[in-house]
Formats: sequence, C-alpha cells, structure tokens
Amino acid sequence: MAKIPYRFYLTEEQMPKQWYNLRADMKEQPDPLLNPADLKPLKEEDLYPIFCKELAHQEMDSETAYYDIPDEILEMYKIYRPSPLIRAYNLEKELGTPAKIYYKFEGNNTSGSHKLNSAIAQAYYAKKQGLTSLTTETGAGQWGTALSEACSYFKLPLTVFMVKCSYEQKPFRKAIMQTFDANVIPSPSNTTEVGRKILESNPDTTGSLGCAISEAVEKAVTTEGCRYVLGSVLNQVLLHQSIIGLEAEKAMNILGEYPDVVIGCAGGGSNLGGLIAPFMRDKIKGEKDIRIVAVEPASCPSFTRGKYAYDFCDTGKVTPMAKMYTLGCSFMPSANHAGGLRYHGMSPILSKLYHDGYMEAVSYEQTKVFEAAKLFARVETILPAPESSHAIRCAIDEALKCKETGEEKTILFGLTGTGYFDMTAYNAFNEGTMSDYIPTDEDLQKGFDALPKVE
Amino acid sequence: MAKIPYRFYLTEEQMPKQWYNLRADMKEQPDPLLNPADLKPLKEEDLYPIFCKELAHQEMDSETAYYDIPDEILEMYKIYRPSPLIRAYNLEKELGTPAKIYYKFEGNNTSGSHKLNSAIAQAYYAKKQGLTSLTTETGAGQWGTALSEACSYFKLPLTVFMVKCSYEQKPFRKAIMQTFDANVIPSPSNTTEVGRKILESNPDTTGSLGCAISEAVEKAVTTEGCRYVLGSVLNQVLLHQSIIGLEAEKAMNILGEYPDVVIGCAGGGSNLGGLIAPFMRDKIKGEKDIRIVAVEPASCPSFTRGKYAYDFCDTGKVTPMAKMYTLGCSFMPSANHAGGLRYHGMSPILSKLYHDGYMEAVSYEQTKVFEAAKLFARVETILPAPESSHAIRCAIDEALKCKETGEEKTILFGLTGTGYFDMTAYNAFNEGTMSDYIPTDEDLQKGFDALPKVE
Repeated sequence: MAKIPYRFYLTEEQMPKQWYNLRADMKEQPDPLLNPADLKPLKEEDLYPIFCKELAHQEMDSETAYYDIPDEILEMYKIYRPSPLIRAYNLEKELGTPAKIYYKFEGNNTSGSHKLNSAIAQAYYAKKQGLTSLTTETGAGQWGTALSEACSYFKLPLTVFMVKCSYEQKPFRKAIMQTFDANVIPSPSNTTEVGRKILESNPDTTGSLGCAISEAVEKAVTTEGCRYVLGSVLNQVLLHQSIIGLEAEKAMNILGEYPDVVIGCAGGGSNLGGLIAPFMRDKIKGEKDIRIVAVEPASCPSFTRGKYAYDFCDTGKVTPMAKMYTLGCSFMPSANHAGGLRYHGMSPILSKLYHDGYMEAVSYEQTKVFEAAKLFARVETILPAPESSHAIRCAIDEALKCKETGEEKTILFGLTGTGYFDMTAYNAFNEGTMSDYIPTDEDLQKGFDALPKVE
Repeated sequence: MAKIPYRFYLTEEQMPKQWYNLRADMKEQPDPLLNPADLKPLKEEDLYPIFCKELAHQEMDSETAYYDIPDEILEMYKIYRPSPLIRAYNLEKELGTPAKIYYKFEGNNTSGSHKLNSAIAQAYYAKKQGLTSLTTETGAGQWGTALSEACSYFKLPLTVFMVKCSYEQKPFRKAIMQTFDANVIPSPSNTTEVGRKILESNPDTTGSLGCAISEAVEKAVTTEGCRYVLGSVLNQVLLHQSIIGLEAEKAMNILGEYPDVVIGCAGGGSNLGGLIAPFMRDKIKGEKDIRIVAVEPASCPSFTRGKYAYDFCDTGKVTPMAKMYTLGCSFMPSANHAGGLRYHGMSPILSKLYHDGYMEAVSYEQTKVFEAAKLFARVETILPAPESSHAIRCAIDEALKCKETGEEKTILFGLTGTGYFDMTAYNAFNEGTMSDYIPTDEDLQKGFDALPKVE
C-alpha cells in the first residue's frame, strides 16, 4: 500500500448499500419504550399516529441486522456522500504523537452536519407513505436545516417550530431553512393550542425546545396526512446514521487499518451511535478488543453523571418514556453553554451499551473544547462545530497519552460538522469571555427528583 | 466506462503537480503594468517592495508555461483538495435538458471558496523568503478568511484591514479570521497615516475597499519584513488558481468528457481565469472549438459595458496601472448589490482574451441570479454563494437552450463557494425585498471620464 492519503473517498460503487441495525447483535436489548398513560410497552402500531409506518417499524425492530437502503435515498446520498475519511497528518505532527489519527468528516454538505443522513430517510419514507406534510422542532437549527433540505428535495411541505430566542438570534439559520421552502414558526406560537396556552400565561417567553416539540407534535397529530420527525435519540435515527460507521469501516479496511479507539461526541447519540455501529458489532462479537469513548459537555453530563432510568424524551412530557441515561427531562444546561449536545437524555441503545460496560464516557468543560477546536482549525484547516470539538479534544488527549507511552495506536473520531453558525461562541472564546459551568450535585438532584416513578 | 458518478474525486496521486501559466500560450500578451509616476512599464524588481520576490517573478513571467507546485504547498492542498467534479444529474432532470451539466465545487473548505488556492501559495512564498508578516484588505471577508487560514498554517502573522461597515455588519467573518489568529482592524483606522487622514476629514466614514487597500499597502511598505498580498486580478493569482481548471480537465478526461461550454463568474477574474486555463489553452492552440463564457452582475458590468483601457487597480490609486476592462477605479456598485463581484476592473489576462475574441461575457440582474441559486440549492443540496450563482444562472440558461434545440452539449461551470455568510441577501430574496439595479450610461460615463490619461 502506498502512503495513506490525507483524504480518502470511497467510490460511488464502494458506498454501503445497507444500513446496520446494532440491536440485532446486542446480547441484551434496551428496555422497551413505555406508554406514559399505563406504563405498558409500546407496540409498533402505537407509534403510527406520530411516525410513518416504515419508521415506526424500524424504531421497534431489533431483529433485522441489515436494511437495504432504498434507491431513492441512495440517489440523494450520492449528491453529498461518501464523506471523506481524513488522516490528520498535520494534527499528529503538531502533537508529536506516534498515534495515527483518523476522522470521518460529515460537515461537507449544506446542512453542515451528519443530520442530513437521517433527514433524507425520514422525508423519503413519509413521502412514500403518501403523507403530505411533516413537522419538527429545531433549537440551534442544524436539524431543521437538514430536514428542510431533505423535504425540499422530495417536495414535501415542512413546518419547523424554532425556539423563539434562536429564531431571533439566528436569522441566518432561519433564512437557510426558508431558502429550502420550510415554513419556520417561532415557538411558542399562536398556531397551536399548547402554544397559545403558554403565550397566555407567559407572553414574553423566549421559548424552549420542550415547548417547540409539543407544538410540532400537536400540529402533526391534528393535521391530516402529517407526521412528526426527530433528528436524534431514536433507534431509527441510529440506524440511518450507521452509514457513517459503515463508510468509515470500509475505507479503513481498504487502507489496511482498524481503530484501537473510536471517539464520538454525544448529545442525543445520533452521531455516536452511527459512527460506532460496525465497530461495536465487532466488539460485541468478541472479534475486536477496542475502546469506544463517548464525549459530552461537563455542563450536560448525561452519561458521566446521569441516572439510568425511565424518563420522558422531551421536556413537555408528550412523548413515550425511554430507559436511558438522563439528567431528568426538566434539566436545562446553563445559559453559558455554547454548543449543542444539550439534550437531557441519551439514545436508549447507547445507554444500554454504556450500562453494560461496552463503552466509556468522558466530559469536558467548554473552554478546553474550544482550545482543541482552535488548534484543530489551524492545522487541519476545518473550522469544527463546537459539538464535534468535544471529540477532537478527547482524540487529542488520547494521542498525547500515546506520546507519553510511545504506543502507536490508531484513533478514529467523528467530526460531525462545521462551526460556521457558531461564531458567537468562537468570538466569546477568542475574546476570553467564555466561561465554564459544571452543575453541582444539588442542581442535578432536582432533575433526578422529578424523574417519573416507574417500577 | 460505467455510469458517471455524481461526485468524482481525483486520487491524491492524480492531483496536478504543476500550475499552468496561460500567458505562455497566448498569441498576444496583455499590455504591461505601468508605473503611474512615469507611465513606463514596470520591471520585476519594481514589485519587490510590495510582493515577495518569487511572486513578483510569477507576476511578470509570460514565458514559463508550467510551474512545479512546491511540496509544502501540495501538502496543504491535499488537506482540502482535490475538489469534486460534480455531475448535476438532479439539475439536468429538473430542467428536462438533454445537456450534460458538470460543476467544479470549490466550497468544501473552511474559507468557503476557491480563494484558499492562492492564499496558500502567497503565504508559502512569503514565509520561504523569510518575511515575518503580511497585510491584506478584505471586504466581504472571503479572501481575508482564506489568507488567515493559510497564514495560520504557515505561522505567519497577518494583519487584515477590513472595511469598517463589513467589520461591524459581519462579526462572524471577523471571528473566523481571529480564530485563525489574524489581527483584524476596521478600516479606516488610526494605525496608518492614510487612515488617520481619512478619519480626520471624515470621522464617521464606514470605509471602502479602496481605503483598506491603501492602509494595507502602507503598512506593508513601512514595516520591516512585511509584504502586501491580494486575492484576485493579478497574474500570479490566476496561475495559482489554474489548479481548478487542471483538476477539472483531468477528471473530465478520466470520465471521457470534454466541455462544449465553460462558464465562470467574474469579479476580478481569479476563479474564471483558473477554471478556464487549460480549456483556453486548447482553444488558443486550435485543438478545441469551445465557448468560454464570463458571467458578471448587471450592477458591475466590467466586461459587458466597461472600457478596455489603462486604469489603477485600486480606488486609492496607490497601485500600478493595468490595461483592462474597467468601469473606472472610482466606480462603486449600487448599495443594493448583494454579493461579491464588485470590482471595477478585471484581470489583464482575461481582459486581453476577451478583447481578442476568445471569450464571451454576459451579465445578469441579481434577482435572476438568486432564483437560480434557490433552484440549484433545492435539487443539488448545496447552498451556493451569490457570486457562484451567476455561473449557475448562465449554465441553466445554456441548458434550457439545449432543451429547445435538442443539443446534447456538455456544460462545465465553476461553483466557487458556499453562501453561509450571505444569508442577509438570501433573506432579502426570500422576503421579496431584493431589488435590481442597472447603472445608467450616465453613471458609467462618470467612471470613464475619470480614467487616467495614458497614450
């Protein structure tokens, strides 16, 4: 094999044609979703009013290991995929590490992140079922942008409830979604019952993700031919995102490589679950002895300081309950928390794997994360999203450990996206006004006290 | 050959190792740069106080056809290149055209445009000569960002004079440059003689590109070990940007294709000159009978309505004079002009080729351009920069002509960058508040009247 290139792209023919469902190979399954009304496990049909049928099936299916990716989805994947597997030669040199560092870069598409991989699948299945519109919510706007792109491509009308403070503070994110013809509504709004109630009692509220979810779900279930879609946490999302890991595995295989450590940032788990899927499969099967590391913000530490318990998936408590690592559905990260990764819970699949000892987790304070981001940008010339920079921080620290021990480990991390819409946070870091916040045990206890009682 | 893929990447081994200097094959040379003091042609040495020696040499050299790209530059190119050659299957389908549409996409790097190709070269040669700092100016910020990235990579301190109104209106562009450790100064500033003079006579001015150039040049020539660099117009810049065309030519060759029409947007000419270089060579040599089309905004129509005359390269009249298509160095596009491509003049090389009949030029009003941008974004899922969207508009119109005539032409256009920092303009278009402006003949006459008298 000649020298490994900086950027390696699979050819179109080499692109994976199937998604991988990690549940099919897990020794123990995640606990089932529960109906909050009677605390009984949900059946696939129970999800039909919220999700389109194929997605409800994917959500509940723990048997099928490989799903053929429909041709129409593959066609759209080919517009922006395969994403490159990049050898971080410059970062290695800068650190003086004997480690080999690879990253899978998902930011080379207009949504700026991996979110598009699942947005396309969810829009496609909705269109195929004959649905006539979709709703979703967005906070920072990454997911809303990805879904707007996918819906525009499949000509499916979309309503995005955007948290009002983001709507006002991030007019550019709103403008991108509108360019893709999405109907973007600041939440809370007077277009839904729940929105009107909130506005009545608190006319000056700047909104919350919980409220936006509630509005999006209400509009979906009260509109003919409409369904609600979500960009993370769900099993179906991890299934679609497995394309990241499958491409990375195939590319590394062609290059004669296999990672010793796989590192991903973790908010709801969509990127982490997708990136690690085939590597976790090999680990579960005992074929590979590797480490898998989740990286989260110290200000929202679901894995490292959360409880493994049943909880609602949303702040508004309109969704089913899931067994997961959670800080309590009322938990909100401190206002000084800059990036995403602000979800109170975690993918049930990843939660189970972490609980069963297949994964590690670490947390970092944000100034440490931005230090890593800035170093990375200088030598690798990609301005990383704050979310992705958590994985960069961890990869750098792993590489520095190798420098101490002299180990020539192969490190793979997920670079989920770019930071073009996060310049307010970079500005704060550059100007030295960014601060860190770690919730106290007492802060966290409030969230735990509010967990639903499920036995 | 199997079906042509959506995205085609050369491998690292296939990447061009040389730049191509179109002047070496031109039948007639562009007229020389003149010293404004005595109107005599400049010699290479005359440029040494402004540019580093190797770049001054490249600027004046019309003999050498191929320049080896130094290894250090190739190493940095490999971090973000090759850029993909994309077959616009979805756009073709949307238009129902028999034409085959290809585009070379230069937006997949953090600077968001092709500008990085020359920024790297200019920073490298400066570093190699032992210079200790660089200065430049930036308006919208694309060039400033590219140069900040390159200087950060080569650890060369950089001062960017950013037009004050941009500095204030585009804090995110400023923040990116600062993340790459550039010293960004709003212009006019009190750090230069010329800046102080302007501030004295007009304390509330929001600045201009002309003034920023003057400040950057003053700082360069009055600072030990410092030089000034520029991102367009210059011959050296076209040389570096030939990497775009050379990659496109090689990729098309592997795919068994050759364009019938090559289309590029034109501001100062850096992208257009780079993209067309090898195709223009074939045309000049009589080996290919193809059309080459420059696309410019109707609000800044240097080719289509300008004069071919000697003029200053900057508004402040501190630079040498060049023979080029120009609207007069005092010309400023109307305030409602949204994107870049606002330069009063045009690359002397491209001006000569246009004058000699090797190239066509068209102009479009900006609402027509944004219509094309939005259509393109929906079907190709890339949000294009307003500049690049001029080329999209023209490519669409060429493809629609093929639909009428039934011709199966092969169209190649340059997609220079992404529009993430142009959402204010997209917003105006989405909300229907964007207007068009075409300068009257009288407007233009003012610029022509102020042209320097050169016989």
